[in-house]
Amino acid sequence: MLIKMSKAMLSMALLAGFVGVVQAADQPPSREEAAIKFRKSAYTTLMWYFGPIVRTAKGDIPYDKGLIARNAEYVAFLSKLPRDGFIPGSDKGETKAKPEIWTNSAKFKDAADALERETAKLAEIAKGGNLEAIKEQAGKVQKACKSCHDDFKKKEEDKK
Amino acid sequence: MLIKMSKAMLSMALLAGFVGVVQAADQPPSREEAAIKFRKSAYTTLMWYFGPIVRTAKGDIPYDKGLIARNAEYVAFLSKLPRDGFIPGSDKGETKAKPEIWTNSAKFKDAADALERETAKLAEIAKGGNLEAIKEQAGKVQKACKSCHDDFKKKEEDKK
Repeated sequence: MLIKMSKAMLSMALLAGFVGVVQAADQPPSREEAAIKFRKSAYTTLMWYFGPIVRTAKGDIPYDKGLIARNAEYVAFLSKLPRDGFIPGSDKGETKAKPEIWTNSAKFKDAADALERETAKLAEIAKGGNLEAIKEQAGKVQKACKSCHDDFKKKEEDKK
Repeated sequence: MLIKMSKAMLSMALLAGFVGVVQAADQPPSREEAAIKFRKSAYTTLMWYFGPIVRTAKGDIPYDKGLIARNAEYVAFLSKLPRDGFIPGSDKGETKAKPEIWTNSAKFKDAADALERETAKLAEIAKGGNLEAIKEQAGKVQKACKSCHDDFKKKEEDKK
């Protein structure tokens, strides 16, 4: 079956989907949406500073003692933030947060505490400048990330 | 002029725009794209903590000394971060950053320094617990934000 439409109609049809997206973006975000955006931003910010530590540990970039010590200090600080964004009701929408964050909040707190603890240790070790010790502790931070993601973050395939 | 197209062709045309967006999302981000995402995230994180200070200053929420002191400390820390994301070449793409950030970097540094200075003062004052002094200093932080936005952030209407 063929549909007859003018160029103008085609353009309007093409734009329709985008307009829907733009309209949604024009609404002021709810407190829950803002919380989701905040906690994602906190993790993004944390990873910006943790990235060079991982790349140094892998040997991809040369070890820069000052940079790694500074970044580790920032990561330790930033690790305290995301939990502030897991407010009640923020389990829906643009998030991979599993409901267990709220139904098993004691375990989630333990996981968030573990991240704080391991990043605080990394910051302390990074000041000392022993690269082998930094590598080992960076590995423990990565394990804290993975452990929490395994329990509390939906994978792409089970994202609802 | 009329264009003849099948329903299938129309569907393909409608999807074309979205596919472009999705494909772009599937590419690993360049360092410049990561820098843009990072600095936006740093500002989002900062605003999450500055928001309750502004709402307290306006009288929209009751003054909570502990919360405001904690948030002001976080804001002071977070204000140091965004500048790390204004790397060379990150003036293109999903950003409202004006080219002046790079062509007049001394002035941009002054603006970033002003934000750090005013937020550090706010953190100090917030510890003291004088609400009137907090309001006044929160206003100075807002002026530092606005001044930098006026000079270095594109408005919606002149976004390229």
